[in-house]
Amino acid sequence: MAMLMDGRAVGQRMLDACAEKVKAIVAARGTRPCLATVLVGDDPASVTYTRMKRTRSEAVGMRSLKVELAAASTTEEVVARVAALAADPAVHGILVQHPVPRHVDERRVFETVPSAKDVDGLTLTSFGGVSFGLPGVGYGSCTPEGIVRLLDAYQVELSGRRAVVIGRSPILGKPMAMMLLARDATVTICHSRTRDLGAIVAEADVVVAAVGKARFVQGAWIKPGAVVVDAGYNAGNIGDVDFEPAAERASLITPVPGGVGPVTLAVLIDHTATATARQLGVTL
Amino acid sequence: MAMLMDGRAVGQRMLDACAEKVKAIVAARGTRPCLATVLVGDDPASVTYTRMKRTRSEAVGMRSLKVELAAASTTEEVVARVAALAADPAVHGILVQHPVPRHVDERRVFETVPSAKDVDGLTLTSFGGVSFGLPGVGYGSCTPEGIVRLLDAYQVELSGRRAVVIGRSPILGKPMAMMLLARDATVTICHSRTRDLGAIVAEADVVVAAVGKARFVQGAWIKPGAVVVDAGYNAGNIGDVDFEPAAERASLITPVPGGVGPVTLAVLIDHTATATARQLGVTL
Repeated sequence: MAMLMDGRAVGQRMLDACAEKVKAIVAARGTRPCLATVLVGDDPASVTYTRMKRTRSEAVGMRSLKVELAAASTTEEVVARVAALAADPAVHGILVQHPVPRHVDERRVFETVPSAKDVDGLTLTSFGGVSFGLPGVGYGSCTPEGIVRLLDAYQVELSGRRAVVIGRSPILGKPMAMMLLARDATVTICHSRTRDLGAIVAEADVVVAAVGKARFVQGAWIKPGAVVVDAGYNAGNIGDVDFEPAAERASLITPVPGGVGPVTLAVLIDHTATATARQLGVTL
Repeated sequence: MAMLMDGRAVGQRMLDACAEKVKAIVAARGTRPCLATVLVGDDPASVTYTRMKRTRSEAVGMRSLKVELAAASTTEEVVARVAALAADPAVHGILVQHPVPRHVDERRVFETVPSAKDVDGLTLTSFGGVSFGLPGVGYGSCTPEGIVRLLDAYQVELSGRRAVVIGRSPILGKPMAMMLLARDATVTICHSRTRDLGAIVAEADVVVAAVGKARFVQGAWIKPGAVVVDAGYNAGNIGDVDFEPAAERASLITPVPGGVGPVTLAVLIDHTATATARQLGVTL
């Protein structure tokens, strides 16, 4: 029976460390780090997520700046608002909550965030910087970086181990593969066109599920002793992994909720602290 | 016994098509596409490569602009020269021959190339654009894109097949993985820390060797009927694959030389034609 990876505890430790970083920044420069959250429209889940991000940033002593735009906003209107935040020296990190409404050109909006303030790690520069291992160029996408932090917290060996990432989104699957590769794992990326997925997952020492389909990853696929990370969050608090049978075989597994989510959020806050320190020239 | 993939023939067909594109651009705008080649120092292999690139571009009717900088040039000097080419509307594509001397910050130099002129596909924006499937954002790195063109020329099915990329460089292994993923292959990235490489290669329907070690990939590793692409080019015209035994088992294999190299070069020229057309607003 697998041991649970406690994302709430790991996330809270990270947030506690962030609170110390905020204190150091305020002591050095008299400026509080500021995270701007940009929400376009009023999707209930997105409203909840942005509120959580603001609450957590304030809990560690940061300022948060709430920017809300009507669902009918044009790409140009969203870009203009983000560009204003980009130019504002009092704003250190910018989070554009995704998904944005379909009629808005999401990529153009993301690319308006300068990489120095791209604390959500969504720009091409951030992805490239992480993929090529360029220190200080952009920030890692929060969910995959959170997963690496969680694996580190449980001292999961990655070098030379086989990792299978299920999903290939720009926000999760692709940067996850690049981050596991940077840690010297042998990485396989699977997706909807992958044949015989079960046999491929069965080769993995570490499995990351990021498909967005409830209980899609079957317990019988898991190699005994493997580490299973569930980045899915489907209706009814259900992950992408069929938890009970997977937990029978895995050595470590993330619960849903309380696994990947809290660490993702803590990474965002930590990036904001780091971004502020870099912008103000403070060494943390 | 494998059939050879004839990179010279495929590359020449691409160059012939480029010559037609150049004619169309000249007819529409009276401007010849121009590729600038930037060589820092006098490494003999780099001298040869840049000369080949100039010769091929001129052969299809382009202008080529030869820029040579002393090996002792500082990063700032190289950046200034590339920035001047970036600002010159008569230059449509910029190739910075790599590797540059060790004391030069290669990434800073690459990033000075605007993505519209990044015909070698080395900037973070180009890598991100290719990785995320954003049409018109930058250009693919030439060698992996050439490999995809070669596979296409031989109608190699990629969707749902298992591809193994050996090597994880920013110029070859990583973009190769992203391009194969875009074609719906299930992709595994291997490298120096990979354990039991032979067993992993044995699972592959398509193998791309990009390690830079002569005859590193053994014939016995190849699954019978697999497609083997050798992107290595080691001293003495020797590839990364132990050719004879691999050819016994593969269905298709690239020779070295005459496989990946000529297609890589043709991709660079083709990118330059495309970049020119985009910059001048010509529809090809």
